[in-house]
Parts: sequence; C-alpha cells; structure tokens
Amino acid sequence: MSEPMFKLNCPLPLAGHERVLMAHGGGGRMMSVLIAQIFRQAFDNPELETRHDGAVLTLAPGRLAMSTDSYVIRPLVFPGGDIGTLAVNGTVNDLAMCGARPLYLSAAFILEEGLEIATLWQVALSMRQAAERAGVRIVTGDTKVVERGHGDGLYINTTGIGRLEHALRIAPASVRPGDAVLISGDVGRHGMAVLAARENLSFHSPIESDCAPLADTVMALLQQGIEVHCLRDATRGGLAAVLNEIASDAGLRIDCDDAAIPVDRAVREACELLGLDPLQVANEGCFVAFVAQRHSDAALATLRSFNPRAALIGAVLDAQPGLVTLSTELGGRRILDMPMGELLPRIC
Amino acid sequence: MSEPMFKLNCPLPLAGHERVLMAHGGGGRMMSVLIAQIFRQAFDNPELETRHDGAVLTLAPGRLAMSTDSYVIRPLVFPGGDIGTLAVNGTVNDLAMCGARPLYLSAAFILEEGLEIATLWQVALSMRQAAERAGVRIVTGDTKVVERGHGDGLYINTTGIGRLEHALRIAPASVRPGDAVLISGDVGRHGMAVLAARENLSFHSPIESDCAPLADTVMALLQQGIEVHCLRDATRGGLAAVLNEIASDAGLRIDCDDAAIPVDRAVREACELLGLDPLQVANEGCFVAFVAQRHSDAALATLRSFNPRAALIGAVLDAQPGLVTLSTELGGRRILDMPMGELLPRIC
Repeated sequence: MSEPMFKLNCPLPLAGHERVLMAHGGGGRMMSVLIAQIFRQAFDNPELETRHDGAVLTLAPGRLAMSTDSYVIRPLVFPGGDIGTLAVNGTVNDLAMCGARPLYLSAAFILEEGLEIATLWQVALSMRQAAERAGVRIVTGDTKVVERGHGDGLYINTTGIGRLEHALRIAPASVRPGDAVLISGDVGRHGMAVLAARENLSFHSPIESDCAPLADTVMALLQQGIEVHCLRDATRGGLAAVLNEIASDAGLRIDCDDAAIPVDRAVREACELLGLDPLQVANEGCFVAFVAQRHSDAALATLRSFNPRAALIGAVLDAQPGLVTLSTELGGRRILDMPMGELLPRIC
Repeated sequence: MSEPMFKLNCPLPLAGHERVLMAHGGGGRMMSVLIAQIFRQAFDNPELETRHDGAVLTLAPGRLAMSTDSYVIRPLVFPGGDIGTLAVNGTVNDLAMCGARPLYLSAAFILEEGLEIATLWQVALSMRQAAERAGVRIVTGDTKVVERGHGDGLYINTTGIGRLEHALRIAPASVRPGDAVLISGDVGRHGMAVLAARENLSFHSPIESDCAPLADTVMALLQQGIEVHCLRDATRGGLAAVLNEIASDAGLRIDCDDAAIPVDRAVREACELLGLDPLQVANEGCFVAFVAQRHSDAALATLRSFNPRAALIGAVLDAQPGLVTLSTELGGRRILDMPMGELLPRIC
C-alpha cells in the first residue's frame, strides 16, 4: 500500500465526549462528528471520502464473491485480538473460502449508549490494521446507537467483496470421492482464548486466538494450480460442524484420522479440564481444504509454508452420504457428530 | 421474475420451536435447521443454494456501488411495513442514491434469545416481498443469537451491490451553483408512523410509513438523460440533515422555499401537536435530487410520474458555503440548521 504505516498510538480523537450517546446515532451533527473523527480518520481512503450513502468501486471484469458476517463476541477484547480484528479477518476469510481475493469491506456498527469512545477508537484502529494486513479497504459504513442495556457495547457487521481469479467452482457440490482433506493449522484456539478471557480462567499455558487472515494461503494454493474442490474455515461449531456440513451438502462420507488433527497441547489440556471437545471449539484462522487426491502432497507443502502445523487429516469416501467418521489411535472408528448448538456462545 | 408470486399466508416452518434459543446461533445442527427452514425457504434462489460461506456472482463489467445499513428499529412492526421491509428498501435506496441499479443483497441477522419464530418468519417473508418488488436477490447471509435482554428481538444488517449504467459522478462534490433541488415526495411520514406505533398514539388521521424502493424512480431520471448531480434519501435527521450535509460537503449554500416542501396534513398536525419539525423527521421512501438547472422541469415531470407530491423545493447558490436557508411564506428567511441528534431514536 502507498500509505505510510499507521501509528497505533495515535491519540484519541472526538474531544468532548468520553462515551457514546444516543444522539451519536441520530443522523445529525453529533453523528457526523463521530463518523468523521473516528471512522473516517481510522479507515481513511478515497472511497470513504466521497461522503455518500455508498461507495462506487471499479473492479476488473470477472466473477465476484460476496459474504457477510455480524460479530457479537463477548468480551470485546481477547488474547490475540479484539472484535475489530475479528470483524475484518472473519469476512476476509469467508471470501477466501469462496476462492476470492478479498478487496473491499463495508463496516456497520451498532453501538450501545455508554460505550467508551476510547474502546471504539481502539477497535477502529484494530480494524484498520487488520485491513492493511489482509490487503482490503473499508469503503463504506453505517452507525447506529441503541439504548444502554441493549447490544453489549458493540456489534459489528462487515460485508466483503472479492474477485475470483480462476475458473474453479469451490463449493461443497464440487467435493469428489477420493479427495484429500487437509487442515491449515491447529484447532480450538480461538474458542478457548475467548472462554478464558470471559470467565477469567488462567490455563497452565496462555492460549491466544488464531484470528488471522487466510486469503494469502488460499491464493497460494490456487496460484500453484492445485485443484481445490472446497474450502471452509472452521468457525462456530469447530471442525466437527464444518466436516458434517460438507459431508451432508456433498452427499459423501468423510473419514478422518483423529491423531492427525493438530491440537495445541495447552488447548488439549484446557479442553480436558473443562470437558470440551477441541474439534467442536471455534477457530478464526484455520480452514479445511478438499483437494484432488493427486494434488494432496503439493497442497500440504503449500499449507505448511504458511503454518507448519498444517496436516493431511482424512479423505472423502463414496459411502454413507453425510457421515463423518474418525479413526482413533487404538484402531477404532467413531462417528464425529454435528454439535447441536454451541458449547460456548458469543465467541465470534 | 420467473418465480411464481409468493404466498404470504404460507405456513410457519420450523416445527418444534416457538422461540429462538441460544443454540440456534451456535453453528450446529439447530442453526442449520433454522437457516434452511426460515431463510433458505423465504429467500430461495440459486446463489443461496450453493450453501457456502459466501455467494459467487457474475456481473456485467462496469462500476459497482456498495452500501451497508443496520436496522435497529423499535417496534419491529409499524404502519406501512416492518423491519424486514425497511432492511431491504433502506439499502436498495442507498444504492439508488449512488445512481446504481440494485442487484444483490446480503442479510445478517442478530436474533435475541426468546424472539418468536413466527415473528422471524413474518420478517423474512416481508424481506422476500420487498426484494421482489425492488428487483434484488438476497444471496448470502449470517445468523447470530445473543442472550435474552440484549438486542431488542432482532437487528438486521443488509449490504447491497448495484451496477452503475451511466458515466455520471453522483456525489455532493458534483453539486453546482444554480442546480435545482427537488424532492420525490412528501416528508415526515416514516418517523411519525414509527412514533405512533411505539407510543401507542393515535392521530386524527392514521399515518403510514413511506417505506418504499426508490430505484425505479432514479433509473427513470438517468434513462432520460437528466444531468443528475447528487441524490440523497432523507432518512435519519430528515430533510434538514440531508440538505445540511450536502451544503457542507459541496461547500455551497442551499436555499429552499418552505411552502414548496410537501408535508401531508396528518403529519403536519401530528408534528404540531408534539412540537416536532417535519423537516427533521425521518423518511424511508423520499429523496432529494440535485439536477442541472436546465433539466429541472424534465426531472420534476419524471418524479411526478412516480409520485404526484414530488416538488421543486429550492436552488443551490454560490454563497455562504454550508448554509441552508428557508424562505418562509411571510417573505422572511430563516436558517435551517442541522439537527444535533435525533428527535426520535431507533426509527430505522
């Protein structure tokens, strides 16, 4: 990017108000000051500067991907990130999972009356930093304020547009029997980091969220001509939910090797302590890739060049449609079921 | 559209649950049933059916507009619409204000635990009906659930993509001295309708929200070759906020004729009763157009073909940058100031 590195210690703007008031969402002078001094200052780019109801974008021809996510995480700040980091990376990753290069984001804020302006400013800076790292621009936005007692401080929606630079159809329907199933890193860190922050737990070793943008990894797979059939980041419901969704939507069976699935020792210990299954715990920087069997080694090498914990974890079988099985170390095999709800609500 | 007219009386799906539970947002089986039985059934279209993290879209080459809005209105249902109608029309209108033909919407829901499934279903049907009327497709979405006591039942974010089919630059910076200022309909209805519903007021004559899609009207202006300089729908803060924003961003003065601004008699009476200024009350189906002076008559005729209350209300002057003045019936002139906050919070 042509802009100078942003200083994260830049001083808090919006002199005169320490907390968000209802009037900051009213469409009047106070709202325009809030937008100018917080969001336009943090996200500063030419599209935002048109100051219109939307952004006008010029894209090279080709297929586009569009994805949306609202972020309602509690607490707003957690080890490894905050709601701003998450709101950028989460949507960037959903675009990447469509095989798209993320380009533009919208950002819509629902602020709770009484939210500290300093918190909002810190979140806006996190979003800017995450956007720079992921190579996207926040080009349009919206601000609403709800009364104190509603909304948990801050909800953020980001919606993203990306461009597909290949001819593949990356979706559950493209998964084929024989496909290799790979994972881009170790699982369970985001959910456990949020849980620890929320409940003031301290584990033997501190656990940081894996929250990170995944588009570079995906672009590298595609640029190397790897025949990618499906990609899915393992967020809510964890790896278990993702494998079950894809097995069900593709109408095939997925068989994984339990011992091959990378789980950090601290995460495993914390899960054991709390009786949780790390395969059901949410991630924010980890995805599953279904690739043609003959490209399995090349795909694994590429994934490992970004994260040494990446692994080949299983294969797709032409049997029992919708079933996910897990081969255990003792030579047994169990069904890995879809979680019903979520062990830990409000983690993303 | 090729699909048959949707029956609004179709039965409620999601047998077995009458209210939203936390588990409906957990990424597991209950969430996928909720999405399948409510959102996929209501919005049914091929992009949603890929069941992926985002939608893949093929657009004709050209400039795109992107706009986002979160909807936090209280109450969820009001005379003339509900939060679903509003969530579609509001974003469709923001795209239209960029001079774009609205094409695709994302829809992200933040549900409060305990929300009645019947309410969610009704809102989803309203969204489908509004989307059909506006000619857009809801192609991707997200669902989160927050604990009871947060979130006011339902917040919706919609983000839209539209295509610009002309070479104009429609923005405050394009406004010129001499431009005619027109309004597409009478003002103040949405805010007063919501206020009446929220406070259980009954006015002499019932007031309905003006909530409606505006893209057809804008497309008609553009197709007739009218030199449109800026468009802005008069939502939060009403006409007063919009005129002040544009006067300020364009660095010009706007002078309007108070008597020319159409206000429904019931709205005027209700505003007088409550001490409100109809020019500061929100609208959801009414916009201001700045057009080249020589196209003023043609623009007015086009606007009137959609709404007979459309009017020429003022002109842009090359003086006192940022000022908005109002000529009164008695021959005086007053400054129309930017509202500070909002008289009625949570109206959109």
